[in-house]
Amino acid sequence: MIKATIVGGSGYTGGELLRLLVAHPEIELFQATSRSHLGEYVYQVHPNLRKQTTLKFSDPDLLQPVDMLFLALPHGSAQHKIDQYATLAPNIVDLSADFRLHDPQVYEHWYGSPHAAPNWLPKFVYGLPELHREELRGAHFASGVGCNATASNLALLPLVKAGLIELDKQVIIELKVGSSEGGAEGNPGTHHPERAGVIRTFSAYGHRHTGEVMQELGLTNVSLTMTSVDLVRGVLATAHATVKPGVTTKDLWKAYRSMAVENPFVRVVKEQRGLYRAPEPKVLAGSNYADVGFDLDESNGHVVSICAIDNLMKGAAGTAVQCMNLMLGFDEALGLEFPGLHPI
Amino acid sequence: MIKATIVGGSGYTGGELLRLLVAHPEIELFQATSRSHLGEYVYQVHPNLRKQTTLKFSDPDLLQPVDMLFLALPHGSAQHKIDQYATLAPNIVDLSADFRLHDPQVYEHWYGSPHAAPNWLPKFVYGLPELHREELRGAHFASGVGCNATASNLALLPLVKAGLIELDKQVIIELKVGSSEGGAEGNPGTHHPERAGVIRTFSAYGHRHTGEVMQELGLTNVSLTMTSVDLVRGVLATAHATVKPGVTTKDLWKAYRSMAVENPFVRVVKEQRGLYRAPEPKVLAGSNYADVGFDLDESNGHVVSICAIDNLMKGAAGTAVQCMNLMLGFDEALGLEFPGLHPI
Amino acid sequence: MIKATIVGGSGYTGGELLRLLVAHPEIELFQATSRSHLGEYVYQVHPNLRKQTTLKFSDPDLLQPVDMLFLALPHGSAQHKIDQYATLAPNIVDLSADFRLHDPQVYEHWYGSPHAAPNWLPKFVYGLPELHREELRGAHFASGVGCNATASNLALLPLVKAGLIELDKQVIIELKVGSSEGGAEGNPGTHHPERAGVIRTFSAYGHRHTGEVMQELGLTNVSLTMTSVDLVRGVLATAHATVKPGVTTKDLWKAYRSMAVENPFVRVVKEQRGLYRAPEPKVLAGSNYADVGFDLDESNGHVVSICAIDNLMKGAAGTAVQCMNLMLGFDEALGLEFPGLHPI
Amino acid sequence: MIKATIVGGSGYTGGELLRLLVAHPEIELFQATSRSHLGEYVYQVHPNLRKQTTLKFSDPDLLQPVDMLFLALPHGSAQHKIDQYATLAPNIVDLSADFRLHDPQVYEHWYGSPHAAPNWLPKFVYGLPELHREELRGAHFASGVGCNATASNLALLPLVKAGLIELDKQVIIELKVGSSEGGAEGNPGTHHPERAGVIRTFSAYGHRHTGEVMQELGLTNVSLTMTSVDLVRGVLATAHATVKPGVTTKDLWKAYRSMAVENPFVRVVKEQRGLYRAPEPKVLAGSNYADVGFDLDESNGHVVSICAIDNLMKGAAGTAVQCMNLMLGFDEALGLEFPGLHPI
Repeated sequence: MIKATIVGGSGYTGGELLRLLVAHPEIELFQATSRSHLGEYVYQVHPNLRKQTTLKFSDPDLLQPVDMLFLALPHGSAQHKIDQYATLAPNIVDLSADFRLHDPQVYEHWYGSPHAAPNWLPKFVYGLPELHREELRGAHFASGVGCNATASNLALLPLVKAGLIELDKQVIIELKVGSSEGGAEGNPGTHHPERAGVIRTFSAYGHRHTGEVMQELGLTNVSLTMTSVDLVRGVLATAHATVKPGVTTKDLWKAYRSMAVENPFVRVVKEQRGLYRAPEPKVLAGSNYADVGFDLDESNGHVVSICAIDNLMKGAAGTAVQCMNLMLGFDEALGLEFPGLHPI
Repeated sequence: MIKATIVGGSGYTGGELLRLLVAHPEIELFQATSRSHLGEYVYQVHPNLRKQTTLKFSDPDLLQPVDMLFLALPHGSAQHKIDQYATLAPNIVDLSADFRLHDPQVYEHWYGSPHAAPNWLPKFVYGLPELHREELRGAHFASGVGCNATASNLALLPLVKAGLIELDKQVIIELKVGSSEGGAEGNPGTHHPERAGVIRTFSAYGHRHTGEVMQELGLTNVSLTMTSVDLVRGVLATAHATVKPGVTTKDLWKAYRSMAVENPFVRVVKEQRGLYRAPEPKVLAGSNYADVGFDLDESNGHVVSICAIDNLMKGAAGTAVQCMNLMLGFDEALGLEFPGLHPI
Repeated sequence: MIKATIVGGSGYTGGELLRLLVAHPEIELFQATSRSHLGEYVYQVHPNLRKQTTLKFSDPDLLQPVDMLFLALPHGSAQHKIDQYATLAPNIVDLSADFRLHDPQVYEHWYGSPHAAPNWLPKFVYGLPELHREELRGAHFASGVGCNATASNLALLPLVKAGLIELDKQVIIELKVGSSEGGAEGNPGTHHPERAGVIRTFSAYGHRHTGEVMQELGLTNVSLTMTSVDLVRGVLATAHATVKPGVTTKDLWKAYRSMAVENPFVRVVKEQRGLYRAPEPKVLAGSNYADVGFDLDESNGHVVSICAIDNLMKGAAGTAVQCMNLMLGFDEALGLEFPGLHPI
Repeated sequence: MIKATIVGGSGYTGGELLRLLVAHPEIELFQATSRSHLGEYVYQVHPNLRKQTTLKFSDPDLLQPVDMLFLALPHGSAQHKIDQYATLAPNIVDLSADFRLHDPQVYEHWYGSPHAAPNWLPKFVYGLPELHREELRGAHFASGVGCNATASNLALLPLVKAGLIELDKQVIIELKVGSSEGGAEGNPGTHHPERAGVIRTFSAYGHRHTGEVMQELGLTNVSLTMTSVDLVRGVLATAHATVKPGVTTKDLWKAYRSMAVENPFVRVVKEQRGLYRAPEPKVLAGSNYADVGFDLDESNGHVVSICAIDNLMKGAAGTAVQCMNLMLGFDEALGLEFPGLHPI
């Protein structure tokens, strides 16, 4: 059994990691830390884990060596202690934004301050297996992924990989997101009477995850528009791009199907009947799947590519466990079998 | 025109009062205070009031004399300054719990500390027109009403007034409530991911509003059970009582119909067809109506009486304006004409 | 008093018209028809109207002459009987899609069958006062407006009117819509367990309302993408366009402010603080306001213009009453005073 | 591997069974039938099963022999063909109401028509392991359980089993339920605009599941009040009873803890801190747990006992699989490991 510890276990990403690792057949969950809930049973914070584990939250300053360390801390924290963390475990997945961008200047552009450990940036593989599966096998350091970036990247990946879209034309990505994206700490805007029933476009352009999309897909003219809607888990990316002259729906089918064949957690959803004809995040709650779909207006080359994920799973903890499986040589899907619910 | 001021205008009850008074044909809204939003336009806090008023929140320490003062402060506040408020206006409606209970000992029992102005308690009329209409006409001081107490009182009033139920048997009232009941200040439990989709029984018995129900209906054996559900505005009280031997459904119809005839804001909802056969709070959002209904199991005398209200209207601001109308000699329904929406 | 009749009163648009006309100070509501609810009280279908009116639904085949006729029938119906309706009333507002498009060929393109009364098309004014106020004054025939078209048109109107955007570049409009858009008749996709919590992109491009946007704004390269979210009332249009070289945020402020000054039901929402910094449909439920806002990325000329409306009000019944007010010479805002609720 | 077939696989209970059996390590899912979706992939109806199974819905008239038959048909159907089903499989779990009540007269009382196969009633074990674990081991025929009955039975079981409550006093059970209880077939009342945000008391007393509670707990004076709230999955039962003189909170703790120790899927939730102090259905979506809690007013003996379940799992499919595990000698919890999500 592999010993693993979660640093930062009381947030939503940490809680989802806890759920996955407690049940993972190859993992012994060793510690989960929380400063604010120190000494409490993890099930007192994450009530779904009652009768699953009797682990208590431990002190983040009293970490013990393990095989695998998951860092689920707020952005900007891990980079200050990464040297120390590296002495505690040979394998690290950091789920924050700290090690996703390779270029320190790009990091500073999007996050507003210089990176504290720029020498570590090249050591981290960007932790999206659909983009970096081979690099992740046997790697020791993987970043997490931005949830909005992941939905965007997986919406566009079939188009970019197959060379089907014009790269010099603007790509507009509209993201509709649930409330768990904001994390476990509330603020006036997450107060239920103000947050229920919203359709709230809170960022017209310039969202930080834009940097991850540009880096990973090689796009230069891309804009993310963020809108909060009434849902707890889930994000839907609707990406608008322009296909190259002559590209047909048949070409797109081929590109999307290839992606689904090559990746265990990607599915193409494009049905002619039934209620679920396109990707839909609500049926993905708790699942690691990314559902992708598309429509092409052949009259003008306007392609609309859609990707739905659970932001806490494929957009965070699920992908982190998927990375761990690749890093440690397990089956990529191990511990990620829950398929989601219908109805929900 | 009557000059009116709202002390405490940035909360939800204060906001609803603002909406009502801005549009009230006999009222000139003079001041609305807020310490935390001092100097801001009221529409920056209550976005529905944009283009309705250019009033800004003023300093609660700089109140000017007016004809009518509404106190919409947190519980426990108004009682400490009531002498001062009384020098500023001849007419006061206090929407907090401070002047609802007549007996200082009863107040201390439910609110946990001695009342700071017990001499004022007898001066206030309990501000529910369905119970005290004649006393309110021309009165100068009226209390507000507890939202849960109001739903409970109006559910039981037809039965109590007509002498139809056994008063020595326990009355169990199950209240299902929306999130706006908790006020505009958030807490961890109102964080959207934790509050959405709840069915959360947060108080099995002993809710403070029990005292208002006991006082106003003369009941001694009554219990309120509180459950939060996913809704912003609205409360439904489902009251379980036992009718006296021989009481029939026909007797109940008579009692409920009388109540609806006598009270402009009470409606009986008991239909045999359609989707809205029983009282339902969602169609009451923004409305001052209390919808009541009932079912009697004639085999054992178990009567289930139901009342739906909008907690911010009939349960707070709407009733306060209704009281003002009675106090100042206006038509009781003035400014309270909005009937609610369907669908919503 | 003006006598008015609603043909098709049991649907959601008809219900909203009923609410508005019952309370309208210059209107005597004469008949409201419904084949499926014939003989029922209107409040049995629209429970918010209990105690507001004792009108019963009457037979659509037994219409009597009135001053003003509102047609709230399913699309494709009114055009077959418009000659007959015109004998019954000198003034008609048709809320369906039948008389919105002026060109019969354009109609056939979007609605799939030839128009049954093409000679009537030029007689109808497109019923959006923000576009055709002067034509509507004294007009006898006005069309309704598509709810999605209205949100789109009002999002783009300040930009188009002031000549600020490139008309040859594609305009992408992402619409997020509530469930009442689909009307009062359910289908498998509106079954609550399937519809709750959705983020469902049901039309990537080619929505019928595109025709109205093209006609009214003179745009040729515009695409509407439709996504259902969990809300009953409300639509948010997020429009992506490209400003002409040199256009600044200051230019946009000027254009948007002018629109709000000229139109009683348009408001600019663009705040630097508070929770409601941008247009948000939830606070508009029941209100006739269209809230508009914008963001400009000056680095690349990408402008994001946002418009929020209540689809049943500004997107249907509210605008119809606003048209009637103009047609009959009343104050444009008469009967449309309800400002919406906060919180909700 | 045990071959199993689901008769009636396109409903919600059938879909949940499909999810569980597709992943069950000892089961080979052989057929799943659906008349309305004949020939479709099961994942076209239950989108969470995409990439889980390539099974298609088969003809209910073409069933083949298997080891285990699950009947997930509408109430009143299985009793007419039970003889035939019994020739196809030695083991049957019927999830409808057809074989829950042992007494044909009781069945007729609650379901309104005589039972078609009364001779089969004594052959079925009531399929709630918490009540009939030993009988279920090796049994060949088990009934399903009513979801509301299960929440009620498990709320009251600790009190009844330990002899703590007065059996001659009325027990009032208030049930708050999500929309999936009504099944996959929509009706006007489940249309999203009408069903969203409801607090709808649709049955004040006399719900059919009352019969199951009376039979299983031996209660004679019990009433179920049903209220729909805005949630898809989940039911909360809040039961009001009266303890015998002298019963203390300590006695209750002992009774509830025993129940949790004896039953793998029962948990006591009664915390002094945190957000989840009492049972809450939303964190149980997809889980087979029944969470129970209680509060006792020692001043008058009023006990409020609460039970939360997922109506499709512990209230239907989960319990059915738990029964199968017992019937076939597997570990009781096999295939039921998913613990639910937080947040959701």
